Amino acid sequence: MLSRRELANAIRALSMDAVEKAKSGHPGAPLGMADMAEALWRGILKHNPADPHWPDRDRFVLSNGHASMLLYSVLHLTGYAVSMDDLKNFRQLGSKTPGHPEYLHTPGVEITTGPLGQGLAAAVGMAVAESALAAEFNRPGLEIVDHYTYVFAGDGCLMEGVSHEACSLAGTLRLGKLIVLYDANGISIDGRIGRWFNEDVAARFEAYGWQVLRVDGHDGALVEAAVMAAKADEERPSLIICRTHIGFGAPNKVDTAAAHGAPLGANEVENVRETLGWPYAPFEIPPEYYAAWDCREKGAAAQKAWNELFLRYQEAHPDLAREFCRRISGGLPGELDEIASRMAVKASVARENLATRQAGLNALNGFSPYLPELFGGAADLSGSVGTRFVNVTDYGPENHMGRYLRYGVREFGMGAMLNGMALHGGFIPYGGTFLIFSDYALNAIRLAALMQLKVIWVLTHDSIGVGEDGPTHQPVEQIPGLRLIPGLKVWRPCDSVETVVAWHSALTGNSPVVLALSRQSLPCQLRTAEANAGIARGAYILRGNNDPEPQAVIIATGSEVDLAVRAAAELAEEPDCLRVRVVSMPCAEVFEAQDEQYRNQVLPPNVRARVAVEAAGADWWAKYVGLDGETVGMHGFGASGPAAQLFPYFGFSVEAVKAAVRRVVHRLADK
Amino acid sequence: MLSRRELANAIRALSMDAVEKAKSGHPGAPLGMADMAEALWRGILKHNPADPHWPDRDRFVLSNGHASMLLYSVLHLTGYAVSMDDLKNFRQLGSKTPGHPEYLHTPGVEITTGPLGQGLAAAVGMAVAESALAAEFNRPGLEIVDHYTYVFAGDGCLMEGVSHEACSLAGTLRLGKLIVLYDANGISIDGRIGRWFNEDVAARFEAYGWQVLRVDGHDGALVEAAVMAAKADEERPSLIICRTHIGFGAPNKVDTAAAHGAPLGANEVENVRETLGWPYAPFEIPPEYYAAWDCREKGAAAQKAWNELFLRYQEAHPDLAREFCRRISGGLPGELDEIASRMAVKASVARENLATRQAGLNALNGFSPYLPELFGGAADLSGSVGTRFVNVTDYGPENHMGRYLRYGVREFGMGAMLNGMALHGGFIPYGGTFLIFSDYALNAIRLAALMQLKVIWVLTHDSIGVGEDGPTHQPVEQIPGLRLIPGLKVWRPCDSVETVVAWHSALTGNSPVVLALSRQSLPCQLRTAEANAGIARGAYILRGNNDPEPQAVIIATGSEVDLAVRAAAELAEEPDCLRVRVVSMPCAEVFEAQDEQYRNQVLPPNVRARVAVEAAGADWWAKYVGLDGETVGMHGFGASGPAAQLFPYFGFSVEAVKAAVRRVVHRLADK
Repeated sequence: MLSRRELANAIRALSMDAVEKAKSGHPGAPLGMADMAEALWRGILKHNPADPHWPDRDRFVLSNGHASMLLYSVLHLTGYAVSMDDLKNFRQLGSKTPGHPEYLHTPGVEITTGPLGQGLAAAVGMAVAESALAAEFNRPGLEIVDHYTYVFAGDGCLMEGVSHEACSLAGTLRLGKLIVLYDANGISIDGRIGRWFNEDVAARFEAYGWQVLRVDGHDGALVEAAVMAAKADEERPSLIICRTHIGFGAPNKVDTAAAHGAPLGANEVENVRETLGWPYAPFEIPPEYYAAWDCREKGAAAQKAWNELFLRYQEAHPDLAREFCRRISGGLPGELDEIASRMAVKASVARENLATRQAGLNALNGFSPYLPELFGGAADLSGSVGTRFVNVTDYGPENHMGRYLRYGVREFGMGAMLNGMALHGGFIPYGGTFLIFSDYALNAIRLAALMQLKVIWVLTHDSIGVGEDGPTHQPVEQIPGLRLIPGLKVWRPCDSVETVVAWHSALTGNSPVVLALSRQSLPCQLRTAEANAGIARGAYILRGNNDPEPQAVIIATGSEVDLAVRAAAELAEEPDCLRVRVVSMPCAEVFEAQDEQYRNQVLPPNVRARVAVEAAGADWWAKYVGLDGETVGMHGFGASGPAAQLFPYFGFSVEAVKAAVRRVVHRLADK
Repeated sequence: MLSRRELANAIRALSMDAVEKAKSGHPGAPLGMADMAEALWRGILKHNPADPHWPDRDRFVLSNGHASMLLYSVLHLTGYAVSMDDLKNFRQLGSKTPGHPEYLHTPGVEITTGPLGQGLAAAVGMAVAESALAAEFNRPGLEIVDHYTYVFAGDGCLMEGVSHEACSLAGTLRLGKLIVLYDANGISIDGRIGRWFNEDVAARFEAYGWQVLRVDGHDGALVEAAVMAAKADEERPSLIICRTHIGFGAPNKVDTAAAHGAPLGANEVENVRETLGWPYAPFEIPPEYYAAWDCREKGAAAQKAWNELFLRYQEAHPDLAREFCRRISGGLPGELDEIASRMAVKASVARENLATRQAGLNALNGFSPYLPELFGGAADLSGSVGTRFVNVTDYGPENHMGRYLRYGVREFGMGAMLNGMALHGGFIPYGGTFLIFSDYALNAIRLAALMQLKVIWVLTHDSIGVGEDGPTHQPVEQIPGLRLIPGLKVWRPCDSVETVVAWHSALTGNSPVVLALSRQSLPCQLRTAEANAGIARGAYILRGNNDPEPQAVIIATGSEVDLAVRAAAELAEEPDCLRVRVVSMPCAEVFEAQDEQYRNQVLPPNVRARVAVEAAGADWWAKYVGLDGETVGMHGFGASGPAAQLFPYFGFSVEAVKAAVRRVVHRLADK
C-alpha cells in the first residue's frame, strides 16, 4: 500500500513538472503543503468530484493562491474534470489552469485567490453563510446544510490586515466550522520572515477566541488528527499551525525563498525526484496512485446519501425544500419586478425630498419581506448608511437566523466576507459604509467583479455633500474610480424613484453593484412615463424629450441632476432661449449595454455641446463630453464646511452650469 | 490649585461647546479622552507651542481624528496659534479647525487623520524615522534627536486591518519610543462593541511583542504613571489601555453611541456643565485655567536647551550639523540635477533594452550615494520590484542605520508608515509592491496626496505584461484610477531614459509620486535633444517633431510607446503616407501643469485624429482623444498566459494601432 507521503509526492511531482513546463509558477508552496493536502482531500473533505456544485459539499479555499498547482493537482487526482492535458497547459492562455485559481474557470475551484489574505477572509463569509443557511433550513434529523469551510493560508495571508479584520470577527461570531490550516514555513519572498513577521501567531489567534493547534505539517496522520480536533470544537474556529518546509524535497532550495516563485530548474527537479524517491517521468502518475487518490466513488456515495436525506426533507417540508432549491440556484421570487414598479410609482407620486440613503433604506424595507436571502450589514455605520431594514435581527453566535451583520470598522474584511457569502450561495449579501472607505476595500470589490458575484455595496455620503467631516471623508475620485473596474455597475441615483430602480437592478442583475447614495436630501424629479421607463436603461432624457435636436445636452447624476434641471429651465427662459436637454445617467455601465439606437437617441452623436455635472473628479466625463464639452466637477480635494456652502464654493451652482453650457455652445458656434 | 479633572474639563467644555455651535461634530471622544490629554499634554509631552516645527518635539498623533476638538482644545489651551475664535469657527469653511485634523492647516497638527487606523500606522513610521535619524546624527552626549511618538487611538483604529499590519511590525522592530494610548470606551457607532469586537486586545498586542499596560483613563495621575512606565521600557512599544467612558460627564449619553457623532444638544450640554461642576459660559475659560495649561514657557525653555545642545553639536560636528539642517528642511544636494542628466545621457547612449523596474533600480543606484535621506522598502517583493539599492542595509532593531525596510506583506501598513516617515522629516521614503496591490493601500496614497507628502511608490508589473500570474495580478484600472487622485503624480516611463527623469522628478518634486514600471524588457527609444528635454515636461513629441500639422497623433505611455512608434513608422511607409506624430506622455499631471503654448504645441488642438495606446483601462484617455479619437486599451480584465501572447490577444499590436489610426483619420475625413 502506498504511504501518505508517497501519495503526497504525486502532488509534488505534478506541481513541479507543470511549473517547469510552463517556465513560470510557484513550486515551493505545493511542495510544502502536499502532505497537508493529502491529509485533507483524500480522507476528510466532503466533496464529489463529479458535482462540484453539490450544495452541501465542504468548501475549500486556497488563500495562498499562488500554490494553484497544489489545487489543480488534487482536483486532477481526486477525479474532477481537470485532465492531465489541463495540467500540462498550466498558465497558458485559455487553459483551465491559470496562474492563480479562478472561480468559474476550473471545476472545483471555489474562489479566485492570489491577492493575499482575502481567501481567508472570504472563507469567514462562507462559514457565516453555512451557519445561517443551516439555521434557516435544517430540521431535526434533516440537517441538509452541514459542512465545513477549510482554508489553506500562508504567512503572507496572516501578515495582511484583512486577515486580522476577518479572523477577529470570526472568533467573536464563534464560527466553529471554520478550520484554517496555516502553512507555517517561515519563508516569504524576501526570505526568512523573522525580521518582519515574528509575532506569536498562536497567541494572536487565541486572543481572537480561536482554538489553536500545532502540528508537523509533513505528518499526514497528525494533520488529520488536528483537523478532527478542530471539528470537535464546535464553538471556536480553529487555526492549525502546520510547520512545513517550503520546497520540501528540493535539496538545494528547501527552506529558501528561491523555491517560492520560479521553476526549480531541470537539475533541481531531478534532485527532488531522487530525494523523494519518485522515479516516474514528468506527468506520469502510476495507476495505483490514481486508485488511491480517486474520490469519485466515495464522493458519489456521500452525495447520494445527501440526496436521500434531501428527498426525506422534501417529503416532510415541501415548501422549505422548494425554497432551498430556489435559494441555492439564485432564482428570484416572481413578484419582485411588480414590487419594484409599485414602489417606483409610489415614490413618483409621493415626490418626497429624501436623501437617497434614506430612499435606499425605504426600498430595502419594501423588498426585504419578499427576499429572505437578503443578508445585510455595515462596517459600523448602520444608522448612517441605512442598511438595517425593518424587522431584521442581528446575526450572531446566539442567533444564526439573524440576517444583519455588524462587521465593526472593517471595510476590507466585510468586502471579502461579502464575496464569500455570495460564493457560498443561498444569500444576496450587501454591505454598507461611507463611499470614501471603499478605498479600504477596493480589491475585494475588484475580486467580486472578476468573479461576477452578486454583491451589493451601499456606499453613502457620496460627495462633498458630506459637509463638515471634510476632505478625508469626501469622495472625489471614488465614483469615477469604481467605474473603471470592469464588470462593476455603479449606480448614483438622483432621487427616491431612481433609487428604487437602482436597488431593483442590483437585486436582479448578476454582477456586483455599487449604490452611491447621498447624505443630503434631494428633490424628487418630475418624470414622464417614458422617462420613468428609461431609468432602468442607465440613462434617459429627463428634460427636453420632445426636442430631437437640442442645442446642448447636460448629463448629470445623483445630487447634481436637480442642478442640471434648474439650469436647463432657466436657460430656456432667457432671451436666447437655449434648448437644452437634460440626461440623467444613474448608471453608465447599464446605459453602455443598451443598443446603439437607444444610446444615440439619448445622446445624439452630432450634439457636441455637452456638459456633464457631477460632484466628483471631472476627468472621467470626457468619455461623454469629449474635447468640445465641459464638466462641472471636482478638480481637487474637498473641504470642511457646511454642505450647502461647499457646493457653490466648488462651482456647483445653477449659474455655473448655465455658464458652462453657454461657453460650450458658443465655442462650437465659433468653429 | 485646580485639579487634573478640572483642567481636563476645560477640554470637555470647549469641545462640546464648539460641536454645539457648529451643529456638527463628535463630542463623545473628547469628553472621554480629556483626562488622558491632560495627563499627556500638560506634563509629559515635549513641545513648544511657539514653534510647532521644532525638530526634536515629541510627535502626537490623534488616530481617532474625529476627536479633533480634543486636539484643537489642547492646542489652544497650551498656547499654539489656535485662538478662541478659531475654536468658535469649528468645522466652518476656511477655518483653522476643520472637522478632522488636517496637516498644513492648523499649527500643531502633525498629521491628517480621520480614516481610522492610519494615524496609528503612520505613527509607527514616525517612530522608525526618529530612531533612524537618531542613529545617524546623535553623538555621545549630543543626542539631538531624542523624542517620543504618542498616539491616541480608539476601538475603530484597532479593528482596522492596517493597525494589525503596522503594530505587528512595530513589535518586531522593537520601537520602544512608540507609546499608544488606547481609548477603550467599549462603544463604536453601532453601539456596545462586544458583539463585533470582543478580541483580547492586550493579548493581541503582547503577541506582537508590545508592552501592555492597563489603567483607568479618567485618572490623570495613573495615566501619567503608565506613560512613564511605557517610556521606561526602551525595548518594546507600549499600548496603554485606558478604560474610559465616551461622553464622560453627559448623564444621558455617557457610554452610548449617541455621544459619538452628533452635538449633545443644549439640554445635555447644560447637564454636562452641572455634572462636571463647570459653571462658565460657552467658550469661557477662566484665566487660572489658561495659566495652568500654558506650555509656552516650559516649551520655550525646552527648545532653548535643545538649541544650546545643537550649538555644541554644531561646534563639535559642523558637517553633520549642516547635513542635519538640510535633511530637516527637505533641501536637496545641489548636484542632484547634474547627476540626473548625466544618468539620462548615459542611458540614452547605452540604449539598453531593460524592464523599467530594472531601469528604476539603476536610477536608484545612481542617486542613492548622493541622497542619504533615501529610505527604501518593499512589501515583501524586494527582488521583484527593484527597490533595494546597492550597499543599503536593512533597518532593524539591531541596525537603526539601515535604510531599507522589509515591510512584509503589508501594503497598507507600508503606505501609512511611508506617510509617517515623510511627516517626521529627515527622509525621503519610498516603498515598492506590484501595481495591482496599490488597491490595498489606496487610502494611504490618497492621504499622502491630501497632505502633499513626498512619498514615492515604486509600483511594478504595471500591466498585462505580468503574464502568467493572471488577472488577479494584472492591473487594468489602477493606472487611470491613480491618475484620478488629486495632487498625485503618476509616471509611467517607456524606457531607461524616461525612468531616470521620472525618478528625478519624484525626488525633486513636492508631492507623492507613483512610478508605474514594467515587468518586461522595453526597447530604448531614439530621441532628439528636444525630445530628451521634453521628458521632464510630462509629455513630448517623440516622433514627428518636424511636422507641425500631423494628420494624426498617437499618444502612448510606458510599454506601449514602442508600439506607437512602430505603427507610425509603418503608416508613413505605406502608400497613403500618413503623417503621424507620436507623443510619449509619461506623466499626464506634469504635462497638464505646463503652459498652454507647450501643451498646444505637443497636442495641436485642431488635430482631432488622436489615438491613445496604453495597456490599461481605456476610458480615462477620452480626456485626450475625445469623441473623435480612439483608445487602444483594456476593456475588461486580463488573463493568465505568457505576456508575449497576451498583448496581441488583448489588441496591442502594431496592426491594431495602425487600424485605429486609419479608422480615426477616415472617420474625421468623412465628416
